[in-house]
Amino acid sequence: MKIAILGGDGFVGWPTALHLSHLGHEIHIIDNLSRRWIDTELGVQSLTPMDSIQERCRVWHELTGRRLNFHLLDLSSEYERLKTWMGENAPDAVIHFAEQRAAPYSMKSDRHKVYTVNNNINATHNLLAALVETGIDAHLVHLGTMGVYGYSSVGAAIPEGYLTVELDKLDGGRATQEILYPTKPGSVYHMTKSLDQILFQFYAQNDGLRITDLHQGIVWGTHTDQTRRHDQLINRFDYDGDYGTVLNRFLIQAAIGHPLTVHGTGGQTRAFIHIQDSVRCIELALADAPKARDRVRIFNQMTETHRVRDLAELVAMMTGAEVAYLPNPRKEAAENDLVVRNEQFLELGLDPITLQEGLLDEVVDVAKKFAYRVDRSRVPAVSAWTKDLSQKVEHDPEGRAIRSVS
Amino acid sequence: MKIAILGGDGFVGWPTALHLSHLGHEIHIIDNLSRRWIDTELGVQSLTPMDSIQERCRVWHELTGRRLNFHLLDLSSEYERLKTWMGENAPDAVIHFAEQRAAPYSMKSDRHKVYTVNNNINATHNLLAALVETGIDAHLVHLGTMGVYGYSSVGAAIPEGYLTVELDKLDGGRATQEILYPTKPGSVYHMTKSLDQILFQFYAQNDGLRITDLHQGIVWGTHTDQTRRHDQLINRFDYDGDYGTVLNRFLIQAAIGHPLTVHGTGGQTRAFIHIQDSVRCIELALADAPKARDRVRIFNQMTETHRVRDLAELVAMMTGAEVAYLPNPRKEAAENDLVVRNEQFLELGLDPITLQEGLLDEVVDVAKKFAYRVDRSRVPAVSAWTKDLSQKVEHDPEGRAIRSVS
Ligand SMILES: NC(=O)c1ccc[n+]([C@@H]2O[C@H](COP(=O)([O-])OP(=O)(O)OC[C@H]3O[C@@H](n4cnc5c(N)ncnc54)[C@H](O)[C@@H]3O)[C@@H](O)[C@H]2O)c1
Ligand SMILES: NC(=O)c1ccc[n+]([C@@H]2O[C@H](COP(=O)([O-])OP(=O)(O)OC[C@H]3O[C@@H](n4cnc5c(N)ncnc54)[C@H](O)[C@@H]3O)[C@@H](O)[C@H]2O)c1
Repeated sequence: MKIAILGGDGFVGWPTALHLSHLGHEIHIIDNLSRRWIDTELGVQSLTPMDSIQERCRVWHELTGRRLNFHLLDLSSEYERLKTWMGENAPDAVIHFAEQRAAPYSMKSDRHKVYTVNNNINATHNLLAALVETGIDAHLVHLGTMGVYGYSSVGAAIPEGYLTVELDKLDGGRATQEILYPTKPGSVYHMTKSLDQILFQFYAQNDGLRITDLHQGIVWGTHTDQTRRHDQLINRFDYDGDYGTVLNRFLIQAAIGHPLTVHGTGGQTRAFIHIQDSVRCIELALADAPKARDRVRIFNQMTETHRVRDLAELVAMMTGAEVAYLPNPRKEAAENDLVVRNEQFLELGLDPITLQEGLLDEVVDVAKKFAYRVDRSRVPAVSAWTKDLSQKVEHDPEGRAIRSVS
Repeated sequence: MKIAILGGDGFVGWPTALHLSHLGHEIHIIDNLSRRWIDTELGVQSLTPMDSIQERCRVWHELTGRRLNFHLLDLSSEYERLKTWMGENAPDAVIHFAEQRAAPYSMKSDRHKVYTVNNNINATHNLLAALVETGIDAHLVHLGTMGVYGYSSVGAAIPEGYLTVELDKLDGGRATQEILYPTKPGSVYHMTKSLDQILFQFYAQNDGLRITDLHQGIVWGTHTDQTRRHDQLINRFDYDGDYGTVLNRFLIQAAIGHPLTVHGTGGQTRAFIHIQDSVRCIELALADAPKARDRVRIFNQMTETHRVRDLAELVAMMTGAEVAYLPNPRKEAAENDLVVRNEQFLELGLDPITLQEGLLDEVVDVAKKFAYRVDRSRVPAVSAWTKDLSQKVEHDPEGRAIRSVS
């Protein structure tokens, strides 16, 4: 297949490009490299030393003989170039990663809110309009997020995309209607994914576009089979306050000998998936394309759920680090359950890598190995918190850090 | 009150500005005049001779001593100027009409789709971001559309914004959740209004913005008490294929002696409201502002529903025109019921003007009066249809045109 990977220079896009190239597909990466510019803006960098996209593509070619074609293009502001590219290249599939994806970044200031909405909505809509206009019958696979549903669960399992609701008819009867499972976005970033869903639904119904939307959990892990093949193919590892996930931040705290900082009780439950499983899911979704006029196919792309405090305890156990419980500055439920249906990928043959079995690799091969590159000013330290909030950390009889009331 | 009227040069915005100025409010019109540019692009013009916004404001001042302040500003591309304006002027209320509002225009070409999404979503989101950033506690009143729900009714009445759904809990019980009534947009324009709803819900919940969303029916009529006061205050009247409503097109066909063209059985039901009632509803909604942290207040702003064929028959009866039934080129349900709840405005004291009583004014004071200005090339004629589709129009025993099968 000829596959366009939009956002193929990013954290999930890059290993996806390698994985699909390895499987023999013709790969075209389209990216405006905005994620690298954001690193520059924030004055942060990937823990792992990451080469330019051009260099990465060169190394892959040298190693495998396979080509990764890179095209510098901004989806959100260069509609005409996008359309021309699509018309000339007519890919069989388009995988769309190209959005600003950090919730904290999307909330930093009004400028960041405006940027995130403008970038994400126009990128997605331009792509849809270009597919219709060029008449290309490509299968569009988009990366959405589990977070779109919010985390204040009412105790119901999150289904894969749809909910059937009942309406009172005027004749006294009941009618049923299938709707998109209601979203509850908690940030401007998550809101854009909620908007994307409506764009997809419209274009699938109105123009018969064939669309798969993957509602992904938090992706952890750095290496895949393909990124491991050469030092210069290494994937990015973000640990700053905007792009670093909670797990990455724990790994870095442990690697530099800081206590792992947990806010509140750490009772927030989140959904996770390993990067290797993420690229595998995309492969599975690609192979199982909807037909024209099908509804948008929605998968929950996650393999397990964990409470934040359990993640901290797991990292602590593997590294010997301490866990410090601090007050929670965010408006969010202290404890939440999260049950997510993911039968579709399991039925297609996904065999998940669990945190329990895969995390040690991250500790050793990534966090410890590159600990010398950590910018300590970017890592939350307990001392800062205790000073600010006159908090101190106490330990329970098993030596576990507990939240102190001071 | 100090009121900012965004899109105040438009069809509903202009009489709203006059109405609220007449009531003694301080009015600021913000508009980028894109609607006038679109007339230029399409080579069409309002049936009524419409002055420049600057001249209209001057006439109003001369007549009443009251000032309408006009500011040329593009909400979708001039975020910083918008924020500065809001910060310096701190309006008590903001009424937001400033979107591209024609479904056919939004579907003309990919360029029009891209324009409509970019314009409408960025206009709305920039406004929300600017309100949060400047900390102004203004009541935001937005104009949405009834059409956002689509017209393939399942036979249930459309409630005012919300629906309570039931979810299966993991413990075997049932939980209820209130959601936005599911939308089913039938055009890119309607889709943008569906996106707007999610933006409003997010900013109301996250930032406590006080928002009212008016889901308006098709607005008919031209004059209000205030536009009638001077020839140069006259409101616009669109009858072209993009911006002209079905009723306006019937009025123009009758005025120039054409048969009224009805597509299909004319069984499509739509919701309507008179322009005078529309401005009155906005006044009522303004007075009844939600409190911070309230959910978005949603009203159905319509007063009656009619089938397209009944509109045609009504205009025919008043003018002596014939009705021609032609094949329907659109993908839409041939016949649909539409029942809409609108108790909220009735309870606030709205006393609707019915089509039955108000339509003759339109026929005489507008359509006939300005018939000399009609661009006939813009008015659908039966002959064109019959030629293209080898259709001919037959009449039933009462002389009513019926759809022929030919
Ligand atoms: N990483 C996660 O944990 C996670 C979880 C759930 C969902 N997702 C989703 O998966 C997708 C990929 O995530 P990621 O972690 O790889 O993000 P990333 O930021 O590392 O990669 C996104 C890539 O898209 C590019 N891009 C952004 N806007 C663009 C535009 N307008 N034109 C062209 N290129 C543009 C960026 O330069 C970047 O290379 C995103 O849509 C994200 O929302 C990620
Ligand atoms: N007219 C109807 O029948 C009807 C029915 C339902 C809902 N509505 C809604 O009511 C609102 C007003 O409708 P209308 O008929 O007065 O439309 P209109 O096109 O006559 O007026 C809209 C005004 O907004 C301005 N505008 C558009 N984009 C702008 C931007 N980015 N920055 C600044 N100004 C901008 C235009 O120049 C125009 O003057 C719209 O939001 C429309 O969707 C109208």
